[in-house]
Amino acid sequence: MKIKVIEPIIDLSEVEVLQDLQPFVNPGTELSVEKIAFGPASIESEYDVSIAVPYILEKVQKAEGDGFQGIFIDCFGDPGVRAARELVDIPVFGAFQPSMFLGAALGQRMTIITVLQGLVPILRNQVSENGLSEKVVSIRPVNIPVLELNDKRRSEEAILEQCLRAIREDDPHVFILGCTGMVGIASSVQKRLLKEGFDVPVIDPAFAALKMLETCIAMGLKQSRLTYFKPPEKTRITNR
Amino acid sequence: MKIKVIEPIIDLSEVEVLQDLQPFVNPGTELSVEKIAFGPASIESEYDVSIAVPYILEKVQKAEGDGFQGIFIDCFGDPGVRAARELVDIPVFGAFQPSMFLGAALGQRMTIITVLQGLVPILRNQVSENGLSEKVVSIRPVNIPVLELNDKRRSEEAILEQCLRAIREDDPHVFILGCTGMVGIASSVQKRLLKEGFDVPVIDPAFAALKMLETCIAMGLKQSRLTYFKPPEKTRITNR
Amino acid sequence: MKIKVIEPIIDLSEVEVLQDLQPFVNPGTELSVEKIAFGPASIESEYDVSIAVPYILEKVQKAEGDGFQGIFIDCFGDPGVRAARELVDIPVFGAFQPSMFLGAALGQRMTIITVLQGLVPILRNQVSENGLSEKVVSIRPVNIPVLELNDKRRSEEAILEQCLRAIREDDPHVFILGCTGMVGIASSVQKRLLKEGFDVPVIDPAFAALKMLETCIAMGLKQSRLTYFKPPEKTRITNR
Amino acid sequence: MKIKVIEPIIDLSEVEVLQDLQPFVNPGTELSVEKIAFGPASIESEYDVSIAVPYILEKVQKAEGDGFQGIFIDCFGDPGVRAARELVDIPVFGAFQPSMFLGAALGQRMTIITVLQGLVPILRNQVSENGLSEKVVSIRPVNIPVLELNDKRRSEEAILEQCLRAIREDDPHVFILGCTGMVGIASSVQKRLLKEGFDVPVIDPAFAALKMLETCIAMGLKQSRLTYFKPPEKTRITNR
Amino acid sequence: MKIKVIEPIIDLSEVEVLQDLQPFVNPGTELSVEKIAFGPASIESEYDVSIAVPYILEKVQKAEGDGFQGIFIDCFGDPGVRAARELVDIPVFGAFQPSMFLGAALGQRMTIITVLQGLVPILRNQVSENGLSEKVVSIRPVNIPVLELNDKRRSEEAILEQCLRAIREDDPHVFILGCTGMVGIASSVQKRLLKEGFDVPVIDPAFAALKMLETCIAMGLKQSRLTYFKPPEKTRITNR
Amino acid sequence: MKIKVIEPIIDLSEVEVLQDLQPFVNPGTELSVEKIAFGPASIESEYDVSIAVPYILEKVQKAEGDGFQGIFIDCFGDPGVRAARELVDIPVFGAFQPSMFLGAALGQRMTIITVLQGLVPILRNQVSENGLSEKVVSIRPVNIPVLELNDKRRSEEAILEQCLRAIREDDPHVFILGCTGMVGIASSVQKRLLKEGFDVPVIDPAFAALKMLETCIAMGLKQSRLTYFKPPEKTRITNR
Repeated sequence: MKIKVIEPIIDLSEVEVLQDLQPFVNPGTELSVEKIAFGPASIESEYDVSIAVPYILEKVQKAEGDGFQGIFIDCFGDPGVRAARELVDIPVFGAFQPSMFLGAALGQRMTIITVLQGLVPILRNQVSENGLSEKVVSIRPVNIPVLELNDKRRSEEAILEQCLRAIREDDPHVFILGCTGMVGIASSVQKRLLKEGFDVPVIDPAFAALKMLETCIAMGLKQSRLTYFKPPEKTRITNR
Repeated sequence: MKIKVIEPIIDLSEVEVLQDLQPFVNPGTELSVEKIAFGPASIESEYDVSIAVPYILEKVQKAEGDGFQGIFIDCFGDPGVRAARELVDIPVFGAFQPSMFLGAALGQRMTIITVLQGLVPILRNQVSENGLSEKVVSIRPVNIPVLELNDKRRSEEAILEQCLRAIREDDPHVFILGCTGMVGIASSVQKRLLKEGFDVPVIDPAFAALKMLETCIAMGLKQSRLTYFKPPEKTRITNR
Repeated sequence: MKIKVIEPIIDLSEVEVLQDLQPFVNPGTELSVEKIAFGPASIESEYDVSIAVPYILEKVQKAEGDGFQGIFIDCFGDPGVRAARELVDIPVFGAFQPSMFLGAALGQRMTIITVLQGLVPILRNQVSENGLSEKVVSIRPVNIPVLELNDKRRSEEAILEQCLRAIREDDPHVFILGCTGMVGIASSVQKRLLKEGFDVPVIDPAFAALKMLETCIAMGLKQSRLTYFKPPEKTRITNR
Repeated sequence: MKIKVIEPIIDLSEVEVLQDLQPFVNPGTELSVEKIAFGPASIESEYDVSIAVPYILEKVQKAEGDGFQGIFIDCFGDPGVRAARELVDIPVFGAFQPSMFLGAALGQRMTIITVLQGLVPILRNQVSENGLSEKVVSIRPVNIPVLELNDKRRSEEAILEQCLRAIREDDPHVFILGCTGMVGIASSVQKRLLKEGFDVPVIDPAFAALKMLETCIAMGLKQSRLTYFKPPEKTRITNR
Repeated sequence: MKIKVIEPIIDLSEVEVLQDLQPFVNPGTELSVEKIAFGPASIESEYDVSIAVPYILEKVQKAEGDGFQGIFIDCFGDPGVRAARELVDIPVFGAFQPSMFLGAALGQRMTIITVLQGLVPILRNQVSENGLSEKVVSIRPVNIPVLELNDKRRSEEAILEQCLRAIREDDPHVFILGCTGMVGIASSVQKRLLKEGFDVPVIDPAFAALKMLETCIAMGLKQSRLTYFKPPEKTRITNR
Repeated sequence: MKIKVIEPIIDLSEVEVLQDLQPFVNPGTELSVEKIAFGPASIESEYDVSIAVPYILEKVQKAEGDGFQGIFIDCFGDPGVRAARELVDIPVFGAFQPSMFLGAALGQRMTIITVLQGLVPILRNQVSENGLSEKVVSIRPVNIPVLELNDKRRSEEAILEQCLRAIREDDPHVFILGCTGMVGIASSVQKRLLKEGFDVPVIDPAFAALKMLETCIAMGLKQSRLTYFKPPEKTRITNR
């Protein structure tokens, strides 16, 4: 299997991403990571999404042409996922749907841990659109910008703290780490929650996304063309 | 009042749009119409939205700088509305929310008449996001591309036909014309439905949007900053 | 435009109401205020609504006969609105629907500030009936009876306090003042919330209602006859 | 047990009503039927409800004073039920809630058979308010005015026909006769549906209401004062 | 009327149960209590339900054969109710549906008081299945195992405490005692809440269930065969 | 990885099941199939579920003891899944949740194809419990008993026919084969729908379940202990 990972931001090391994600896939799965040429340094607003998407879509179309069998847009905000699904005939996922629907199968109520307060209403929209409002009991920010998440230790402490506060106040049964910049932390948080007496799943969204892609490729599935129609032919002018 | 109308497409006469929209506003309201520099010829897919939005947002920021008091993005798909609301401190509307929430106040169940089948799932997402799923009983396409809607006679016949079929099959009480390219047709369809025995509102979405903008400006209201946060400062690189 | 304002209570100065509401309408709009002949001193229960409605409906029918183009029943409880819509062929609004649907367009989550705890379940019913349960996060009383709201200073302090408590506890993004007796306070509360760091809309419901009436009259719209059927002819005996 | 039955209409034989309802109650239950002094000949619109309610409430207050232990307002539209519950400290039911909540316990999906199309949106509001939208799959009129329902044979045929059409088109599992004027027909319709191969409950709403009243009186229950607050003391002037 | 009460547990005095339940039924109703031969000592998990159900169903089939007209499975978890309804043609209830739907008719918002935290997600599933999510505001455990509930004094104190905490934190209007082991306590809790100023219904679920059975038998109703189909004939091997 | 497959029926060839399922898993995954000792020949009612579950749970506990890392209960009805999850500390799935949540990620609206009409209300309960009501537009039976599904040709034709009828009448975007007896048919139905012009996913539920198990084992996840508590210690007597 060949899976393309598209980073919807301009400023990161593709080699490091590959090192983070490689352990998540089967031995036979070949990952290729590519960042976008123009766009934001991180995705933390609808505005960031808007300026990244045209460049994400370029990579999406190229990936299909290059023979990739699936595409992971490496962001919990699913930027450009719906447009990408219109453009290509291979499965496309961001991190939101795979992790949320996996979480929904593992417990009754979920809490999403996100980065900033400003992302809460944006994620709540994604929850509504995906018909998950009944299952998501809270969305809690750690108040750390994406670009500072690479201080893994600080991030893990802040995530754990929010998980514990959620358990006290919102009664969640499953946690979703709501930013792919939190990669590699879920497992440790899960262990520490267990030590606190809470035996609950903590889901790494990039991990979930790559497994769902492998699943779809193995099963011969992609997104439905009755939800995602091919865009009609017409004049479209860009300055790129 | 000064209101900026942004056309999210590249190929239309701003003068004609102004002629269409001027009758919708109060005598004291000054409209200014501007189309985007790059983008699609019409908005009929998520892909079209994606490539239009960056250029819409440029116009949005410029409009605020130029002293406009409100912005209407002239499309039922509300392209770029959420990002625009993050960027500026004046009210911004597309045509979806104003017409849908007006319709919700006038009757119990609504049908949206749209252009193409491929837009139905996209509009259904907007319905969900806005918490309107209980009130929308159907979304029906006339199967006429946006660029052919200017044949007003054919469009009106097709819209009327779908309204009548909806009444027979879905029991709607209010109709929303789900494309701003259908401008100037609502009133005539409403009259013809009345002749058929159905005394129901038919809402022109651009008309509804301009009235809601006038209302907000008069009332000193704009979108909430707790839903639409200002994007954090960061590096953003574009090739425009 | 000629709009009739019906006060669903027996004991107030129509001249003062006119002074409060006149600034809310366009220069070309003519307001006429009339109170009911019999009924309660204020609307604070289903019982109050019940005894006011027959007298409201008399005024509604008279207003249509007198050539008014729209009717505002000046109460957030929408007393008699549904029956009135059955009786006449001009648009009729209370204050609930116009302010709630405007609020729904401006932010993701709303809090209603009402007068007494006993109104909370009544308003919750109105929220359900209008399909707005997903968007209303709380309904909070200031614990001031309607007839004491004219102490504007005390009222404003109590409203502001509840808004701030709601922000801390319920995460609302938009406030609706849930009693038309709170007229003229919204703008000031909005400014004070802004000073506290919360840039959120605060909606005066009578203001919203009059603007929605102007909008409907301008657009040639009224409530749907498929939701509000004309009452069948039959014997009806009253002792009035 | 002493139960007061209030007829919310002006023109019927209380003796005949008593004959209809007496078989529904336990041997030890004493029924007393009273119609209102002024109001409509039948309840078929919000307007009819509005003009009946003040006179219903008079009877409600008198019934409590006269030592009755429960009140049945004999109409599926629950006219005045909410206001009545504010006024007295004995259980009050219309026919809607008891029959709908009984039906909800007997099967997954319900269809209401009502009299006229104009009542469909009114009943849909009651369904929403009671949180039953998920369970009600259709509301179907027989197109017979209330005052003609006493032609029991014609009524039964029309009800049966709508039940059978509902089964073919809407997949209901339980039927609620949505008008207390349909009294005494449910059992026969249930038997005839069984002969057609459909072993489904058909609920007589007046029967259900009287049983729920007996249940509440036996259990020492009445409506909650946290939903239905006592109306505050104040000036209220009526011309009755 | 002859009603069979099936105890889904192995270790209790049928005589004592009969003493508890006899006061709940009409003079003409004959109760017969029987416990299962094998199974758990109490129902506190899905596992307990699973091992009790086959033995409950044996008693269900026997009861119909013995000429009983209705069956009460004496547990709030409704163990085996759905399967039982497939097997027999007489009405079958557990305690959940009758008490919840009665409560739904008496107030806007309900709180269930249960025994252990582990039952909360199980009851939440029952709430969802019955379409009651909108009306249930909380489910609170007293943290007393079923087998210790017979210390009525301790149980009552714990229930009262949770009711009062719910009123302070969740705004319920009706309480449902969510375990039939709490039999005989509701009335006293209701009185004590009234003394605290909260005039709210507190429902004994076994009481509600027996009254709903009497109601169904009187009305000639049972569960719908379109929800509960007869199991197809086939080979089924058991070691019992 | 070692995965135990439990067949919740008594009469099938474990060797054949293994041949069917082996192609669904990764090369490194070892499957072991075991049927139950007592129970029904097929699962087509709540009654069938009830008598199978105790024997399923025996196999579940044994599987954990034998060192398996995950358990698949091979039935779309998820029989015993919730109780099983209480009993063991390894991930347990039936076929319902994995296939439904995968389908939910691939399109907006789903149709389930089941075997018999009597299963429709049972599956609808599962849909509600899992919060999927908004996404499931229909559940359609092929009217073939489970034990006749091994006539693969007849089954495929009947499934295809229902898919095509669903597309015409219900507008689904994704199909879920709602019985694990339909194994090996999804891919062919998907191809034939594509030939008819409908490019939609058709999901084999056993395939989806095994992939979700592999995903959970790879990610170190199992069901949440806050949804599925360990059953309290107590006396439990069985005759097995």
